[in-house]
Amino acid sequence: MRPQDALPDGLPVALPDAVREALLAPLVDHHCRGVRRDDLVRARFELLITEADAPAPPGTTHFDTPAGAAIRRWCAPLLDLEPHTPPAVYLARRAELGAEEVNRRMLRGAGVAAFLVETSPESPELLSVTETGRHGEAAADEIVRIEQIEHEVAETSGAGVSYISALEGELADRAARAAGLASAIAHRYGLDFDPARPSRGAVIAAANRRLSDPKEPLADPVLLRHLLWTAVEVARAGGLPLQFHTGHGGPEAAPHRADPALMAGFVRALQPMGVPVILLGCRPFHRQAAHLAAAFPHVYVDVGGAPARAGADAVIEELLELAPFHKQLFGSHAHGVAETCYLGALQHRRALARALALRLAADEWSASDAARVAYMIGSGNARRVYRL
Amino acid sequence: MRPQDALPDGLPVALPDAVREALLAPLVDHHCRGVRRDDLVRARFELLITEADAPAPPGTTHFDTPAGAAIRRWCAPLLDLEPHTPPAVYLARRAELGAEEVNRRMLRGAGVAAFLVETSPESPELLSVTETGRHGEAAADEIVRIEQIEHEVAETSGAGVSYISALEGELADRAARAAGLASAIAHRYGLDFDPARPSRGAVIAAANRRLSDPKEPLADPVLLRHLLWTAVEVARAGGLPLQFHTGHGGPEAAPHRADPALMAGFVRALQPMGVPVILLGCRPFHRQAAHLAAAFPHVYVDVGGAPARAGADAVIEELLELAPFHKQLFGSHAHGVAETCYLGALQHRRALARALALRLAADEWSASDAARVAYMIGSGNARRVYRL
Amino acid sequence: MRPQDALPDGLPVALPDAVREALLAPLVDHHCRGVRRDDLVRARFELLITEADAPAPPGTTHFDTPAGAAIRRWCAPLLDLEPHTPPAVYLARRAELGAEEVNRRMLRGAGVAAFLVETSPESPELLSVTETGRHGEAAADEIVRIEQIEHEVAETSGAGVSYISALEGELADRAARAAGLASAIAHRYGLDFDPARPSRGAVIAAANRRLSDPKEPLADPVLLRHLLWTAVEVARAGGLPLQFHTGHGGPEAAPHRADPALMAGFVRALQPMGVPVILLGCRPFHRQAAHLAAAFPHVYVDVGGAPARAGADAVIEELLELAPFHKQLFGSHAHGVAETCYLGALQHRRALARALALRLAADEWSASDAARVAYMIGSGNARRVYRL
Repeated sequence: MRPQDALPDGLPVALPDAVREALLAPLVDHHCRGVRRDDLVRARFELLITEADAPAPPGTTHFDTPAGAAIRRWCAPLLDLEPHTPPAVYLARRAELGAEEVNRRMLRGAGVAAFLVETSPESPELLSVTETGRHGEAAADEIVRIEQIEHEVAETSGAGVSYISALEGELADRAARAAGLASAIAHRYGLDFDPARPSRGAVIAAANRRLSDPKEPLADPVLLRHLLWTAVEVARAGGLPLQFHTGHGGPEAAPHRADPALMAGFVRALQPMGVPVILLGCRPFHRQAAHLAAAFPHVYVDVGGAPARAGADAVIEELLELAPFHKQLFGSHAHGVAETCYLGALQHRRALARALALRLAADEWSASDAARVAYMIGSGNARRVYRL
Repeated sequence: MRPQDALPDGLPVALPDAVREALLAPLVDHHCRGVRRDDLVRARFELLITEADAPAPPGTTHFDTPAGAAIRRWCAPLLDLEPHTPPAVYLARRAELGAEEVNRRMLRGAGVAAFLVETSPESPELLSVTETGRHGEAAADEIVRIEQIEHEVAETSGAGVSYISALEGELADRAARAAGLASAIAHRYGLDFDPARPSRGAVIAAANRRLSDPKEPLADPVLLRHLLWTAVEVARAGGLPLQFHTGHGGPEAAPHRADPALMAGFVRALQPMGVPVILLGCRPFHRQAAHLAAAFPHVYVDVGGAPARAGADAVIEELLELAPFHKQLFGSHAHGVAETCYLGALQHRRALARALALRLAADEWSASDAARVAYMIGSGNARRVYRL
Repeated sequence: MRPQDALPDGLPVALPDAVREALLAPLVDHHCRGVRRDDLVRARFELLITEADAPAPPGTTHFDTPAGAAIRRWCAPLLDLEPHTPPAVYLARRAELGAEEVNRRMLRGAGVAAFLVETSPESPELLSVTETGRHGEAAADEIVRIEQIEHEVAETSGAGVSYISALEGELADRAARAAGLASAIAHRYGLDFDPARPSRGAVIAAANRRLSDPKEPLADPVLLRHLLWTAVEVARAGGLPLQFHTGHGGPEAAPHRADPALMAGFVRALQPMGVPVILLGCRPFHRQAAHLAAAFPHVYVDVGGAPARAGADAVIEELLELAPFHKQLFGSHAHGVAETCYLGALQHRRALARALALRLAADEWSASDAARVAYMIGSGNARRVYRL
């Protein structure tokens, strides 16, 4: 079986041709992160399919999770295995094929026309933007994580004013070659940050403290806010969107502070500037994110990143009932193993297929509307917002 | 087709006759706001079907939303158009018929026996309470928004003690002719207000500050709390319920502070006073609201205001599984365009039909219980609580 | 009809034999509280099936709730009545049979192999651990509520250091005979407590204040945190899990502070100690709890306590899509009347049956995986974590 043959079978419901075609059309994956280029032993693979940073408890496995079940069901056929393959068989076949071939099958199987890759220069074991595109037979652009830029600047710049200007310069340079910027302030501090721009004096004082230990990840709220406002200016100048990681990520200390509703004041402050604000992840606060996307003309919401069946179903359904259709963007949230990219795309199509089929069966939507919305969420909105 | 013919067809599932009749019986709409009396150009119409206060981004339309899709599907037939009509055709036909005829068709089509209308005296372009009733061939009573009363008092009263007594007098006067009072403290300040009644001294001091700029919308927490406690006394004396706007409204700065769980301390303080507390809107905090309705004998939860299919479905379902059946109240949340009234009623019936059909199919409820609960939520509870 | 015959009929969908057997296999009920041994008049019975601490409003009944509907539907046959029996008939038959016979039918009908009972020594009208096991023909172990122990110590111990050592001693003694410890800090203070261990000096000062009025329920955050950290040490020494009540309980003043996400910092601090943290209840924050269970190797989430059909359905579904399968534990949350035990078990099986049937129908899971997960959640995980 050729990988791309998996797609047609992947839809769980019968749909009118136009809707089916729209769902199977190439996606724009507006949020993914690199996947590992190297072969992975089981312990490492397990850590890459979980939010935890530790092995599963004795006697258990990270395969006994929604993500693990989905890999065994849906990714196994791409490796020429039967569905529901046991983990050991799956990993043995994966090793036999080698990471490069597996990455190629998964990324191509995702049916993506363009990847927007948030880069992690500190992780040479991840595929680069260019490699991601090549493996997936797709276009590929970079999304620059602004805290990463700050880290580089802090390690090399001088104090005070010099830090400020180096940051502006580096952000502008990197933005000039990117499709967007991304902030992780949700997990560095929290989305309940003071929306006001910090004063220059406060920034210089904080920068001088910062430079005494530049290897530390940035956590100072004054500098995080300064970085954000600098990024807003760079984004405005370049016509770029600004992505925000929101919602639950890993074993962070303050998951409740990743609710995007907490940044409504900042969102409102940004409204006159015309910089699109993209809320990534969002779960379990996706209804809050959908509200912001409905209430503010410059806010968009990401519908991806749920590897499990029903997770994707519930999120897709709840967003489709709350957020404007022109404000929803597909993202695979691929990270670590290429399986996450394939599953992100597959589950998006499956969940959206189910949600649309419900509306068609009840004669609530027309087939042409359903097809149009599938295109919008799958690629059209991203092409418009990111000017691809 | 006569408008009222739309109702029988509107139910999405087959149901026993008794249940169907209960669902199609006239509703009491315990929360609506006025609809516009004037003809509307497209730009204005679009702004009235969205939570946003700005046009949709270039290249998009507020019709590409759950509400827009519902209008095209369900309201078009009431204007003698095919379902799924394009927006331009819909609006052309709407203009052709004229606002008065459209309002009449929509309000009558909603199948409502009594409207409780929250008034906005500052908006002469909205239908009055009496007009709403006449257009809908229904009874109509007023719900008085207490912040509106305060605004009128602040503009005309003297300072300090005079402000306090004028407020008491005006609230009592207006309450004497109303079916209930409503507070918008959620969006003026937040539901995390101090539940204690402010001291008289603090109120006088705040009132004096307030009167130096009475045109400003009230945002001072001391005066908002004083207003609320004054309203509680007036409501108690008159046997009236006190409604609270909760949940996500528009592009407010602090959507997370509209969670009704935040006012549990205030709710508890009110318990001995016997004033019914009605939680309006609630989404996405409807599970929190359902909990309060289950845990406190004087708390009620509103199940309306979801114009889109699945939004209504999820909310109806989640409330039906958590809140006592005698604590749920239907409200259309009609606001701005009459379509919102028709859709509010239609989606309530459709969503409740689906939820009841699930329970009947699984033999979890009897048909007579299902019918009884449909009557309770649709009108019985409101008649009891508002003493209609 | 013998009570145990109700189970096979209780599954709402057809399933492969292996899955059906796994669902009907005896459960480990890792969280229940005692049920009343005495006959109950209607007013008392109604108060035991609601979260409220007050009668339903005039003209209404606590039977018109999800729990009431479930009792009339599912428990009536165990008392030899028709499904959907009116409340008066149900209660008359209940009185006729007597509490002991009813308790026996309900507890046995639950199909539980082992009960973990959180004890309330102050409530002699509740069945003891031993009696619960005997009535249910099951094993039974105790879960010790640590605030209860503190209460006993505060009433009998001397001041300062003496309080501290008495608390340590009593907790260790009680833990030696228990299967786990439980904390109610969520409803005594809130889960947003300071995760740091309080200093010995602060504890002694607070203890001295406390002992001036030891009859009061403990609410001081320093002593609550000290109690918790003492319990952590005792749990570690004894290899016991530590349960936390979370989510909405009764008419508490701060339901939003029962979100388990608020204690992520404390959870992280506990990670190196290897003490399993069990999140009980959780609703409506079960997605937050599922995230903690996914992100931290020592965190588990309870999937029980939803007496109504769809409540259980939604929670089971949302947990199954987010939490590792080896981290989910069934608990009936039985409390007050034995019906809650029977319904907790029945609704767990019904809801899990529906969730698994969806996955099987879409060929997303294999039948053997579905059966395995049903066993894990129903009993296997609890046997491992509680070392039964």
